[in-house]
Amino acid sequence: MSTAEVEAVLAQLEGSWDEARDRLFSLLRIPSISAQPDHAADCASAARWLAEEFAAIGFTTEIRQTPGHPIVIGHYAGPEGAETLPHVLFYGHYDVQPADPLELWESPPFEPRLVEHPDGLRVVARGAVDDKGQVVTFLCACRAWYRATGALPIRVTLLLEGEEEVGSPNLDAFIAEHRDELAADVALISDTGMWDRTTPALTTQLRGMVYVQIDLFGPSRDLHSGMYGGAALNPINALTRVLGDLHDDAGRVRIPGFYDGVAELPPALAAQWQALGFDEAAMLGAIGLPAGSAGELGRPVLERLWARPTADLNGIWGGYTGAGSKTVIPSEAHAKLSCRLVPGQDPAAVLAGLRQFVAERTPPGARIDIQDLNASPGVAVPGDGPHIAAAVAALTDEYGKPPVMMGCGGSIPVVGSLRRLLGLDTILMGFGLEDDQVHSPNEKFDWSCFKGGARSHARLLAKLAGRG
Amino acid sequence: MSTAEVEAVLAQLEGSWDEARDRLFSLLRIPSISAQPDHAADCASAARWLAEEFAAIGFTTEIRQTPGHPIVIGHYAGPEGAETLPHVLFYGHYDVQPADPLELWESPPFEPRLVEHPDGLRVVARGAVDDKGQVVTFLCACRAWYRATGALPIRVTLLLEGEEEVGSPNLDAFIAEHRDELAADVALISDTGMWDRTTPALTTQLRGMVYVQIDLFGPSRDLHSGMYGGAALNPINALTRVLGDLHDDAGRVRIPGFYDGVAELPPALAAQWQALGFDEAAMLGAIGLPAGSAGELGRPVLERLWARPTADLNGIWGGYTGAGSKTVIPSEAHAKLSCRLVPGQDPAAVLAGLRQFVAERTPPGARIDIQDLNASPGVAVPGDGPHIAAAVAALTDEYGKPPVMMGCGGSIPVVGSLRRLLGLDTILMGFGLEDDQVHSPNEKFDWSCFKGGARSHARLLAKLAGRG
Repeated sequence: MSTAEVEAVLAQLEGSWDEARDRLFSLLRIPSISAQPDHAADCASAARWLAEEFAAIGFTTEIRQTPGHPIVIGHYAGPEGAETLPHVLFYGHYDVQPADPLELWESPPFEPRLVEHPDGLRVVARGAVDDKGQVVTFLCACRAWYRATGALPIRVTLLLEGEEEVGSPNLDAFIAEHRDELAADVALISDTGMWDRTTPALTTQLRGMVYVQIDLFGPSRDLHSGMYGGAALNPINALTRVLGDLHDDAGRVRIPGFYDGVAELPPALAAQWQALGFDEAAMLGAIGLPAGSAGELGRPVLERLWARPTADLNGIWGGYTGAGSKTVIPSEAHAKLSCRLVPGQDPAAVLAGLRQFVAERTPPGARIDIQDLNASPGVAVPGDGPHIAAAVAALTDEYGKPPVMMGCGGSIPVVGSLRRLLGLDTILMGFGLEDDQVHSPNEKFDWSCFKGGARSHARLLAKLAGRG
Repeated sequence: MSTAEVEAVLAQLEGSWDEARDRLFSLLRIPSISAQPDHAADCASAARWLAEEFAAIGFTTEIRQTPGHPIVIGHYAGPEGAETLPHVLFYGHYDVQPADPLELWESPPFEPRLVEHPDGLRVVARGAVDDKGQVVTFLCACRAWYRATGALPIRVTLLLEGEEEVGSPNLDAFIAEHRDELAADVALISDTGMWDRTTPALTTQLRGMVYVQIDLFGPSRDLHSGMYGGAALNPINALTRVLGDLHDDAGRVRIPGFYDGVAELPPALAAQWQALGFDEAAMLGAIGLPAGSAGELGRPVLERLWARPTADLNGIWGGYTGAGSKTVIPSEAHAKLSCRLVPGQDPAAVLAGLRQFVAERTPPGARIDIQDLNASPGVAVPGDGPHIAAAVAALTDEYGKPPVMMGCGGSIPVVGSLRRLLGLDTILMGFGLEDDQVHSPNEKFDWSCFKGGARSHARLLAKLAGRG
């Protein structure tokens, strides 16, 4: 009930930013790349790091093994009477994307630095914002409560996984097996962004994903294109022919049934997003592209990013890729393809449609395998209710203006899992910015966003406890 | 005039196959991969090897530097009166293709082995047949003449280059600068194949080539497909869309003007090829493909291979190609494309058409560069005249049946250069087989083909001298 208490917690935060930076850097130095088997020990290290840090501020933490990388579970019982207050399940992930292409990093990806920039200081490292930095904002907020008041004001359960970047293959089973242990009233995730550097946001709509690897096999061995060209199926020719047909001239995806269940945006939400005045030309200009260079013709960019499904090739390879020329017809060619899904699309149906799309275009003599690497539905979370109201109040206090209620083009499949398996809605309160270069070289997290994130989490704990 | 003389030369060959094998193996052990700069010293070694071997049998040889790998020149003056006999210019190349993918070789590519096989012994190594093995058949024939009779029966000039597999960028200039030194009456090349293991062939029609690298540039950095998918141009999507359009549904190449100058096969030649009874199903079945899996609908396979132009993608790469998934929209994507050309097509016009094809399909926001790596026209050589008659006679004596006059799907650009710059026609007498895995892992040269090649060259020297 005391603003003075919140002010004390915030003062504690303000007095310990150097310590927070050191803490963040020690986590960022661990190259916990979940996709690469030789980094398994690093993933285990990052899990241990988190378990120890939260244990140091009163959590009971445990590292749980899975068939993949471990999951960290933590419990904080809260003060006396906390049973009557909201119980928060905080989810985050300690794994990161591969750092390649390494040569494009201005400093090594796992040697974090605080870099001066015209927009302000920024932390540069793989995982700076996705998601280690954002997890540490929550850790720092809890630590400040613990130091300033001796306790957190509410019950908190932690669920910190190490396989988010590879599609969380073991998470759903873990959640299902530990339903009782993970029981809470609301989930909280910091893995999304602000509207801009000074305007907070809550995310209420997330795209899902179907991610596949497509392997096309043709002749039983590599061939000389002079001796076989014009007679033998060329797997690269065939693969480009199949994949080049993914979109029609209006930018719509040609996979059969792809748009089944995709609703048109409600006019009120469309108007709200339109009113945000988002500048597509500026967004794309910053990466050297003109407006309208991708997506469905005639739809506003925020709708294309937040409320429309896509199909993007994320990788392709086959044949000779070295210097100069080699006149080979290779025996196989490969691609990685991801479809971003919106609420209403069924990932299994999209995958079936993709298989049909490929089968219909597979030429005689070719065999195409499709490996399902990842599938999760798009998710919408409520934009109102007491928990969201607490987050709106915390952000409004911190930033002096209410948060934008926005969509997100990316996927956080766990939001759907928490809803389905635990019946929980999620507060998606994140502090990233559009230029954070997530999944790219030189990933960064603005230091002001880190600080604002930690302060906002400190305020949110108070609001949820009715003490802010 | 003496068959006894030829028999003595052949007897000399028959008595020295072990020595011939050792000689061939010592050349095959040199990894003279012209495309890879770190093998430059190996290319120089292979040139030295050839210069020394031919010098040992009476040639005056010299190694000439070029801006790339060196060229070996050799002269053999011939016996008294040789001025009245045909003067042969023998062309070959000592460079080889890269050996990757290395893991598919059953033995290391530069450790030649003589391997038992149901079809007979075979030499397995990179360059076994293309073209080191075939060059050594000629070397052995010359050596047998030198040993058995003390001299070669005619004048011979050697032109042995080390850049054939990278498009011979320095050869034409060299030939033009050394016109007088390279003067001859007819050229001879062994870089083609037999009709089958027991039927010799002369090749009279060769496809040319345009080889390009296509580089597509999109956003200025790699992007997260969740944050940008549906808004930012995806270079892999764009590249597959451009390249997937290369062929129409009838297998014709869509490059503007591609078929300009391509003549229909003369009915007589078409009938001759048809009469060969070539088994497309067997050829393709051997590499796991059904008949009719590529090329222009409705044309016989030999016509498609020997007399029709093609467009084959030889390599493609972009984005994430490692294990698992990475949701990246890469900033660029690349491909290598080669068009096989037939006589009548102008390589410059095909290249211009290709640039137009790509430009017409380049989406807004993309930049596509086309690097011209190689361009040479298709070539037809005469199928009659005294020099060809000598080759027909030599092969008929050796194999007991006349050679098939065939086309070749591959390119030997030097044939066009020798015609244009020196006014020479070329005898294309080669001893490869269709299953030699040229440019592929486990390249081989049948030992019986090697022997028959050396014996045929020995006979040809006699026929050209009027002594066979």
